[in-house]
Amino acid sequence: MTLTEHPRTAPEPTPADDAATNREVPERRRSPRPDHARTLDTDALYAQLMGRWRAEREDTRKLIKDPALWKQPELTYHDQRQRVFEQLGILVQNQSVHRAYPAYVGGGENPGGNIAGFEELVAADPSLQIKAGVQWGLFGAAVHQLGTEEHHRKWLPGIMSLEIPGAFAMTEIGHGSDVAAIGTTATYDPDTQEFVINTPFKAAWKEYLGNAAVHGQAATVFAQLITRGVNHGVHCFFVPIRDAQLNLLPGVQSADDGMKGGLNGIDNGQLAFDHVRIPRENLLNRYGDVAEDGTYTSPIESPGRRFFTMLGTLVQGRVSLDGASTKAAQVGLSIALTYAYQRRQFDDGAGEEATLMSYQLHRRRLLPLLAQTYAASFAHHDLLEAFHDVFSGDNDTPESRAELETLAAGLKPISTWHALNTLQTCREACGGSGFITKNRFTGLYQDLDVYATFEGDNHILLQLVGKRLLGDYSKEFAGADFGSITKYVSSRAEDLALNRSGLRRVAQAVQDTADARKSANALKDPVAQAQLMRARVDNLIGRIADELRPARKMSKADAAEVFNSQQVRLIEAARSHAELLQWEALHRAVQEAEGVNAEVLTWLRDLFGMTLIEKNLGWYLSHGLLSTQRARTVESYILRLIDRIEPYTLDLVAAFGYEQEHLRAEISSGIEAERQEEARAYYRDLRASSEAPVEEKTLRARQTGAGKTARRR
Amino acid sequence: MTLTEHPRTAPEPTPADDAATNREVPERRRSPRPDHARTLDTDALYAQLMGRWRAEREDTRKLIKDPALWKQPELTYHDQRQRVFEQLGILVQNQSVHRAYPAYVGGGENPGGNIAGFEELVAADPSLQIKAGVQWGLFGAAVHQLGTEEHHRKWLPGIMSLEIPGAFAMTEIGHGSDVAAIGTTATYDPDTQEFVINTPFKAAWKEYLGNAAVHGQAATVFAQLITRGVNHGVHCFFVPIRDAQLNLLPGVQSADDGMKGGLNGIDNGQLAFDHVRIPRENLLNRYGDVAEDGTYTSPIESPGRRFFTMLGTLVQGRVSLDGASTKAAQVGLSIALTYAYQRRQFDDGAGEEATLMSYQLHRRRLLPLLAQTYAASFAHHDLLEAFHDVFSGDNDTPESRAELETLAAGLKPISTWHALNTLQTCREACGGSGFITKNRFTGLYQDLDVYATFEGDNHILLQLVGKRLLGDYSKEFAGADFGSITKYVSSRAEDLALNRSGLRRVAQAVQDTADARKSANALKDPVAQAQLMRARVDNLIGRIADELRPARKMSKADAAEVFNSQQVRLIEAARSHAELLQWEALHRAVQEAEGVNAEVLTWLRDLFGMTLIEKNLGWYLSHGLLSTQRARTVESYILRLIDRIEPYTLDLVAAFGYEQEHLRAEISSGIEAERQEEARAYYRDLRASSEAPVEEKTLRARQTGAGKTARRR
Repeated sequence: MTLTEHPRTAPEPTPADDAATNREVPERRRSPRPDHARTLDTDALYAQLMGRWRAEREDTRKLIKDPALWKQPELTYHDQRQRVFEQLGILVQNQSVHRAYPAYVGGGENPGGNIAGFEELVAADPSLQIKAGVQWGLFGAAVHQLGTEEHHRKWLPGIMSLEIPGAFAMTEIGHGSDVAAIGTTATYDPDTQEFVINTPFKAAWKEYLGNAAVHGQAATVFAQLITRGVNHGVHCFFVPIRDAQLNLLPGVQSADDGMKGGLNGIDNGQLAFDHVRIPRENLLNRYGDVAEDGTYTSPIESPGRRFFTMLGTLVQGRVSLDGASTKAAQVGLSIALTYAYQRRQFDDGAGEEATLMSYQLHRRRLLPLLAQTYAASFAHHDLLEAFHDVFSGDNDTPESRAELETLAAGLKPISTWHALNTLQTCREACGGSGFITKNRFTGLYQDLDVYATFEGDNHILLQLVGKRLLGDYSKEFAGADFGSITKYVSSRAEDLALNRSGLRRVAQAVQDTADARKSANALKDPVAQAQLMRARVDNLIGRIADELRPARKMSKADAAEVFNSQQVRLIEAARSHAELLQWEALHRAVQEAEGVNAEVLTWLRDLFGMTLIEKNLGWYLSHGLLSTQRARTVESYILRLIDRIEPYTLDLVAAFGYEQEHLRAEISSGIEAERQEEARAYYRDLRASSEAPVEEKTLRARQTGAGKTARRR
Repeated sequence: MTLTEHPRTAPEPTPADDAATNREVPERRRSPRPDHARTLDTDALYAQLMGRWRAEREDTRKLIKDPALWKQPELTYHDQRQRVFEQLGILVQNQSVHRAYPAYVGGGENPGGNIAGFEELVAADPSLQIKAGVQWGLFGAAVHQLGTEEHHRKWLPGIMSLEIPGAFAMTEIGHGSDVAAIGTTATYDPDTQEFVINTPFKAAWKEYLGNAAVHGQAATVFAQLITRGVNHGVHCFFVPIRDAQLNLLPGVQSADDGMKGGLNGIDNGQLAFDHVRIPRENLLNRYGDVAEDGTYTSPIESPGRRFFTMLGTLVQGRVSLDGASTKAAQVGLSIALTYAYQRRQFDDGAGEEATLMSYQLHRRRLLPLLAQTYAASFAHHDLLEAFHDVFSGDNDTPESRAELETLAAGLKPISTWHALNTLQTCREACGGSGFITKNRFTGLYQDLDVYATFEGDNHILLQLVGKRLLGDYSKEFAGADFGSITKYVSSRAEDLALNRSGLRRVAQAVQDTADARKSANALKDPVAQAQLMRARVDNLIGRIADELRPARKMSKADAAEVFNSQQVRLIEAARSHAELLQWEALHRAVQEAEGVNAEVLTWLRDLFGMTLIEKNLGWYLSHGLLSTQRARTVESYILRLIDRIEPYTLDLVAAFGYEQEHLRAEISSGIEAERQEEARAYYRDLRASSEAPVEEKTLRARQTGAGKTARRR
């Protein structure tokens, strides 16, 4: 069923709601749930949120109830590193690290389940997650994806058992996102049948590598492969770096990055190679090989396509960060929203102190984040399915790989930023409590901070998505190289988002009317929401295309200049595209839900849609896609949706399924409710006794005249 | 001179610039400075930025070049606390802590200079700054401001010399922003002429207090003063808590908050009192006293006004955080912008790798933050002058105090958030380097995080400003009590911002025309910018007033409900008001500058103004204050301003005046420029030699036909 054929008849707000466009009628501030029968089916919602690999997720959630796997932030970074390294052993013992690998080395050949289980580690300690990611998702995956069966049989068992801890040596001090330009060389010497790995200058030192400072005994090193005087571009090599006693091998240098903003359980560091010789067979040769005599061969003729194919096999890092970030947002919201219903602050006007959640501002800060977290959770399912389809071989084509890479490049930036925004908002919403380490927000924020720039800098990834959108918009731009800022643009003309959602491209602006009633309702129609968001992406991309067209006839430098003049807009288009993907995923989740679940998810979808439209309201208005009348309804509609969702908040949090062993915040333990109850009992007893002091204010009121209320200040 | 009388004839963009409203002409991507004679006078700009208390600021900047005062983030929090405590001794030795106190105890009676010098400590270590703030700005200031001469002579010398380290015990676990509702009691016992300090339940434990966990020997404790059966509200008491060997005194309990998200050089903790007796004289009795027989007297009759007068004397915390946050933003931008001109990434299309700063996105991310940092710096001067006027006695009236408090409540939120936003953007803009502790961003972010919620939660402060705006809008709302969310609204009907800037209130919407040329120019007119921003505040406040009017006749609970329905909008109005104050300060700085400085500051002012208008573009359009045509010029005008400012970036940073001992980031040391030069020399030499490998791509191009360029992927 597509949207345009059968618009969903979700329970719509009654006309009475809409009459109040100029004056909000405050709804149930103290929020009794309207009807006891109308509760969420949290089991069903939990199942929907856990998705296809629920079993693997629950395995990890069960495992990480063990305090041995919890972060101990008060340790020095040296001790944290040691602790996390030992925790990796617990993962090995529990067979949590074998799921992705080939069956012939004892793996589970279940790439989707592997990532799902991995993502859940974030609740134990992001350092543990990322250290595991370095060992099995980057170092191990490079051997797995870029090597061939001989390499697998030789090294994967030791990698899986942690006998060979390793680093993934791609980034250099001078080159992060521009991997093609790295300086490290691997020059073939036919006389000895060895590659000579060399770091020619300081900027080519490998940098930020987990396992490099202390624990790594080998590294998958990316270097320019040079043989017979020809540079065949970046390839990956297996290079031993330390012996079993952790002494550096001859020619290998290492430097410690020391403390970081977070993830201090990981020993990030630098590596450099001074003409280090490795056997010819240590080239991971799936996509390019060198014969004994130095002849280079590759199954992929084009050096550019070969390079991006190799990098593309490593997409799982981005996929898993999308999921892990969303889990971290779930954890943060679970804590902050629990506290929001227990903590009380200021008189509510009726003699009781009001819970934080009864304040409009508190709802306005937290509930849109909850809506986006739901959207991000469902969008991640799509990404993980696409990942599994490709890497299980169920649907492994150049097109499905390109789709997967674009999807990952679009979702990873917005979900990592969303996690940071959510955690910071939660931290501030809990005041001083939010700042204390034991309440988790600051540690999660600090650990996740780098998710925004590793495994692909978020802006660079969005630029890549933007170029893909441009290629889809017009064949003319497919593969166009504007100063090689990002070089990978597929020539496929279909639009991934359209494929996945069945939404039709909007050919012209949504017709707007002067009728306020219609205006308000129009924004509640999911088709209208989707059309508006799609129109924004199309319009931005169309305008960029117009600007870039003349550049095709310019010099490369001038063309790069023109491209640069559109950079901000291109990234904005990509971001809007990715947000639409999240929205569409939430929309499909509505359709898969039933009863009250469907109803509340509809409100969450509308809330997410409205906040996206509100964010770009100026753009919609100035481009004639919204009337001023309709635009003015957005603010009040958001506030009404928030009040409507609010009574279901704790159920929506419960559906995330976290237990206190996962949250571990003092303020999620119920301690605040106990304290509030004790304080209220104290005042109740005091009032009932004869010992309660009278307030000076009350006394003054009595003195100035019986029956007259106390004069306001 | 007021704006409306003599609109400034700052150098305006030429008509040629404005023709390009639909098509940006990229300007000097590699940005040669247009004219060597047209350089900024950085000395003059530095003097303008340092302001009236330049000498005190330079004293601190000189002092903190001493590595003994630098943060050592790798220490455990126990060791950091000890180190910072010892650093306080260095401040004492250097007479950095006496400036604010009365001359009769050896103080300097220079409140403005004291804060100025204090603010600069942030570059050494925010923990050092805040620990000093606890000792001399809160604990010491409570004795100074709430006590009388006898108290000053008795305790201030020991406080100044650090003989009496102390805690400022106001906040309780259950009550942060709502100080009036704290649970701690101080009950007068006429038989012994003592106050009995008591913590009746767990939620009334004092919480988050610096110096409470380890170092404090006394505390200024806020408690409900009860005498003769009457509760006279919150007063402050001097309570010894530990002996000189740091053993807790009888009846005093303490708990350690442990690690925090930042500021781990401070020993935050809890305090509780089990019927602890203190002499009657330990009541800090400037605003309320108890005679031997238990009779209460106060120079301020109204309990409400008395309470807010007492709290108002402690405004310096907010004032200093506004300044310190802005300094931290300066430090962050100094580091990130230095790196942005040294780091290179991706081919620029002309065979060189381009500096980060040559990318449109990088400029768009960082330069508006630079503009706002300038605005915040000048706005802070206004705040500090107002503070000095009141606390030096030069202009100490109830009105000037109320103005000061509103100004502080408006500026502190937006400058602390601005610092966090700036530091995070800088961190991401520097990629992996930004995440390493040695490059400073993450540490500063983590330490400043809590600035958003301590010394007044930012949202609560803005709500206070909003209520003040409402009171100014109509006498009807002056002092209105809507559920006592914030109780302090002055009845003064003038508008602080208007007083300070001479800008006229906009009676009706700015008249818009259909002429594109006029549209574009209109936004460059500072009067138009100010009118738009002022109209937004007025319009929001007017609408809230309309909504609240019926509530005057409702029950207290219902009125609170209606007020709550306007909370988000009220805070939005206050935020816009505070941003306008920053903008006006930058506008006045333009008028005080000369030559190129005035020109570049004009561009910064316009850039800041445009980003504020862009942020609320949807609101301006849907309220008919901007035409769609004019709105569409905002985006391109911002991009043009950024390109115009860019060549002056490093001068604008140099005018902040920081030396490497203040910045201390590895990437601000010039190391990246050295690495880049080494790499480029390597490739230059390689190309000149016969050993350079040929690129496979080039080889393929040669093979497929001479003279034909390599086929694009």
